[in-house]
Amino acid sequence: MPYYVGGEIKSRDKLLVAPIDMLRQRHRLDVRTRSEVVALEVAEKRVRVRDLESGHEYTESYDKLIIATGASPFRPPIEGIDGPRVLTLRDLADADRMHHSATSGASHAVVVGAGFIGIEVAENLVRRGIRTTIVELGDQILPPWDREMMAPLEDHLRDQGVELRLNELAQRFIDSPQGLKIELQSGASVDADFAAICIGVRPESRLAADAGIACGSRGGIVVNDHMQTNVADVYAVGDVTEVTDFVTKKSAQIPLAGPANRQGRIAADHLFGRPSTYRGTQGTAVVGVFGKVAAMTGQSEKTLRREGLRYEKIYIHPTDHAGYYPGAEAMTLKLLFDPDDGAILGAQCVGGNGVDKRIDVIAMAIQAGMTVYDLEESELCYAPQFGHAKDPINMAGFVAAGVLRGDQPIVHVDTLNDKSHDPSFLLDVRSEAEFAAGHLPGATNIPIEQLRERLGEVPRDQTITAYCKVGQRGYLATRVLMQHHFDVANLSGGYTLWCRYHD
Amino acid sequence: MPYYVGGEIKSRDKLLVAPIDMLRQRHRLDVRTRSEVVALEVAEKRVRVRDLESGHEYTESYDKLIIATGASPFRPPIEGIDGPRVLTLRDLADADRMHHSATSGASHAVVVGAGFIGIEVAENLVRRGIRTTIVELGDQILPPWDREMMAPLEDHLRDQGVELRLNELAQRFIDSPQGLKIELQSGASVDADFAAICIGVRPESRLAADAGIACGSRGGIVVNDHMQTNVADVYAVGDVTEVTDFVTKKSAQIPLAGPANRQGRIAADHLFGRPSTYRGTQGTAVVGVFGKVAAMTGQSEKTLRREGLRYEKIYIHPTDHAGYYPGAEAMTLKLLFDPDDGAILGAQCVGGNGVDKRIDVIAMAIQAGMTVYDLEESELCYAPQFGHAKDPINMAGFVAAGVLRGDQPIVHVDTLNDKSHDPSFLLDVRSEAEFAAGHLPGATNIPIEQLRERLGEVPRDQTITAYCKVGQRGYLATRVLMQHHFDVANLSGGYTLWCRYHD
Repeated sequence: MPYYVGGEIKSRDKLLVAPIDMLRQRHRLDVRTRSEVVALEVAEKRVRVRDLESGHEYTESYDKLIIATGASPFRPPIEGIDGPRVLTLRDLADADRMHHSATSGASHAVVVGAGFIGIEVAENLVRRGIRTTIVELGDQILPPWDREMMAPLEDHLRDQGVELRLNELAQRFIDSPQGLKIELQSGASVDADFAAICIGVRPESRLAADAGIACGSRGGIVVNDHMQTNVADVYAVGDVTEVTDFVTKKSAQIPLAGPANRQGRIAADHLFGRPSTYRGTQGTAVVGVFGKVAAMTGQSEKTLRREGLRYEKIYIHPTDHAGYYPGAEAMTLKLLFDPDDGAILGAQCVGGNGVDKRIDVIAMAIQAGMTVYDLEESELCYAPQFGHAKDPINMAGFVAAGVLRGDQPIVHVDTLNDKSHDPSFLLDVRSEAEFAAGHLPGATNIPIEQLRERLGEVPRDQTITAYCKVGQRGYLATRVLMQHHFDVANLSGGYTLWCRYHD
Repeated sequence: MPYYVGGEIKSRDKLLVAPIDMLRQRHRLDVRTRSEVVALEVAEKRVRVRDLESGHEYTESYDKLIIATGASPFRPPIEGIDGPRVLTLRDLADADRMHHSATSGASHAVVVGAGFIGIEVAENLVRRGIRTTIVELGDQILPPWDREMMAPLEDHLRDQGVELRLNELAQRFIDSPQGLKIELQSGASVDADFAAICIGVRPESRLAADAGIACGSRGGIVVNDHMQTNVADVYAVGDVTEVTDFVTKKSAQIPLAGPANRQGRIAADHLFGRPSTYRGTQGTAVVGVFGKVAAMTGQSEKTLRREGLRYEKIYIHPTDHAGYYPGAEAMTLKLLFDPDDGAILGAQCVGGNGVDKRIDVIAMAIQAGMTVYDLEESELCYAPQFGHAKDPINMAGFVAAGVLRGDQPIVHVDTLNDKSHDPSFLLDVRSEAEFAAGHLPGATNIPIEQLRERLGEVPRDQTITAYCKVGQRGYLATRVLMQHHFDVANLSGGYTLWCRYHD
C-alpha cells in the first residue's frame, strides 16, 4: 500500500492479490464480505455474524474454525489521534485515504514511527514531493535491526530530505483549518497537512479472548505447532497469533507475510488430518529505503543480549559483486553466532544490490542448523556481475571461523568504548594518507607493508588493537603480531564501523 | 576478460585482482614471474625452473609443493587453428589480443563453442558492434544446463542478433589477406575477421603426470579430500585437479573459481597441520546472457540420467518479485530431487533479476542435505520489490512435496512426447481465449472455473493429462478430478514448457 500511495504502483486493482470473484468461481469458496463476526460461540461450535448491509445478525456453524483476523495498527491514546488528518495504513480504505491526502496538494507530512511501514510511507511521500518528518521514540530507525547497522541508512534518509527526529514522542495532534500541528514531548512542534501513525500493530484477538481462547502477554493467540488454540477445533494463523522464535524457542509476536502464509497451509493440512507442524518464525525481513536495502534474519544482538544468550559477532564490508566489474555496491554484513559451536544465530545486512540474497542464504543456513564453518564451504554463484569467487557469505564464514579457531582474536567498538575496558595500544595499519584523513584518537600509524620492519615500535607491555578500514589488513597485522607473540586483537569492522559509533 | 574485450570493464588494470607488488610487499611472498617450472623432481623434493628472461635453469627445493597450474583452453587439432586470427582467452596476453581484434575495425567474428566463455565473448563482441556467429557442436547452448531450459536463452541470443549454429562443427580455418574463412562440417562456411575458440579447458597436468603424479581419465590430478596427490608432500588445487561431485560422490572435472579458492585454503591449512577437508564441488554456476541470467547448482537431469540415478523433477514459472510491484521479471525454475526421500539433487533457473539468489538458496539447501520439504518451510526475505510472501523457493517446495505426497501426480512433456506412452485425454483448463491462441494438438478445453459442472465431458476410461499455462490451474483441475476418482496427472511446467519442446 505505501507504494500505491507513492505512485510506484499505479493501479489500485493491483493491490487485490486474490479477487473475490476468483475465490468464488475458481476455488468455490463461500466468501461473505461486509459480514462481521461479532462473537465466537465455541461451546456451540458456531459464530455470530452481522450482515453490515442489512444489520441482520445470524449464526453459522462450523466443524473447524480458523481465526485469521490479523493485526491492526496501534493507535496510542493521544489527544487528537482520532482526527481526520491522522491516518493509519491497514486496509484499502486506509490506502485510499492516504493516497488522497498525498495527491491533494499536501506539502508537509509527519510519519510517527520509523519501523518498516513508517520508512516505506516516508519514502513514498517524498516520491510525491511532500516534505516529510519522521518522529521516532527510539534512538534508531527500524527497531528490529541493531543500532550501529542503521547509522548509514539514517544518513541516507536525511540525504533524501527526510527530517528525522529520533528520541522524540508525539504527544498531541491539534487539527485546525490551517492544518495539523503535532506537539512533541521535547516541547517542539511540527506543522503538517497530515500525519501517518506507523508505530506497529497489535493482534486483533479481542473476539478470541472474549470466547475464552488463550492469548499471550503481547495479546497474540497462543497456538501449538499445528496452529491449534486451546479450544477444540479452533485454529489461529497469521499476525493474530503468538509464534515461537526459531532461534530462541521462546514465544514472540512477529507479524510477517511469509510465516502467515505457511501457518495457513499448516492449519489446513492439520484439520484434514495431516501432522504438519510449524517450525517457528526466524524473523527474516527486508525493507527498501530510497534505493538502499536493509535485511535481516534470526536474532539481533540486542535481543540476544536481552535474553542473556552467549554470542559472538563479526562485521564485514564487502561489495555485492566483484570490484573490477562496474556497479559494485558496498554492503555491511553483521553475523551473530554461538561462540561455542559456531551455530548461526542471526545476520543483518545493509547496502544495495545483493543484500536480500545474502540474508536469504543465511536464512537457509539458520533453518538447516548450519554453523559459521559451513558458511566457509558454501558454494555460491560467481560471475563478476553477480558475486565474488569468495562470496560475502564465504568471507563472513572465514572471519567468524577464524575468530572461533583462535587465528584472529577480535575486539569490538563497543568494548573500546566501554570505560571499564583497559585502554590498548591502537595500531592503525592503513596507509599514511588514509591515517591522515581520519583515525581513532591516540592511534599510531604503521602501514601493514612496513609492520614487519617496525615491530620495535609496538609495545610488548600492552594489549594491541590493530585496525584498518574494514578489517582485512587489521587481520594480517594481527597474524604478524601473534606470530611475534604480541597480545593483539583486530578491531572487527575496522575504522568504517568505528565511525558509525562516533558521528 | 570477456567484459574487458567488450568494454564493460574499461581499465585493463582492473583485471589484476592481486597485483604482484601487493603479494610481495604486503604478504612478503617470493613471487617469481617469467619463471617456468619445466620439471617436478619429486624424489628430490625440488622443481626445475627456467628463467624466461635469461634462459637460465636452476632447481628450487621445497618442503611442500602445491600445484596450481589451472587449465588451458582446448585447441582441437583442426587445420588452421594455430593461425593468427584464431584466438583463445586464458591470460592477459590473450585478452589483449582479443581486445585489439575487437577494436580494430572487425565487423564479423565467429565464436566456436557455446559454453560460459563462448556466450560471454559473444555478448561482448556484439557490444562492440561486431556481427557474431556462434558455432556449437551440441544441440544447445551452455551444455551444463538441460536443453529445455536453454530454449528461451537461445531465442534471446538470436533476438540480440547473434547467429546461432547448433549441431555444427568447425572443420578448417583458412586465413587469407581477405580474412578468415571457417569451413563447417555441414558444408557451409562462414567468413569472419577473427575466431574465438571457446570449447572448454583441459587440466594443465603434463608436468605432474611426467613426475608420476596420478591423473584421472579426464586428465585432472587425482587428490584426496585434503588436496594431497599420491606423492608425499605434493598438493594440487584448482582447475588442474579432479574433484568429487558433491551430489553423486563421483569424480568430475568442474573448473570453477569458488571451489578453486576453497581448495587453496584447505591445502594451506592441511600442510600446516590442520585436518581441513574439501567437501566436493556442487557445480554452482551463473552466466549473464544479454541481460538474462542462467544459474544452476548440483546435478542436471542429463547427468542424473547418464549416471542412472533415480530422480523426479518439477518446473515452475514464477516472477522474481510480487507481480503487483513494477518490474517483475519472469523466470523458470527446474528442481531435481530424490523421489524417495525428497533430497534436493540439483536446480536450474533461467530468467532475469533474482535468478542467482534462488540458485544460491538452493545451493545452501544441497550443502545442508535439505529436502523439498525444507524448501516449503524456508523463511526468506519478502517485500514486494524483492520477492513474494511465497517465494519461488517455497513454491518449488510446495509443488515437489505435493508430488511426493501424492497430492498431485504429474506428467512430463518428455513422457507425452514418448511414442511408447499411452496417449491420454488432454484437458486444457485455461480460458477460452488462451486456448484459442494455441494449445496441445487434440486437447479439449474446459476452463477451470467450469470444470466442476462439466465433469461429464471428461472420460473415465482414459488417463487425463490436465494442463494450463504454467501449472497452477492444472494442479487445481488435478485435485478436482482426483476427488472425483479420475485417473489424472498435471503437466509439469504447463503449456509454457511444452512450447519449448515444440518450436
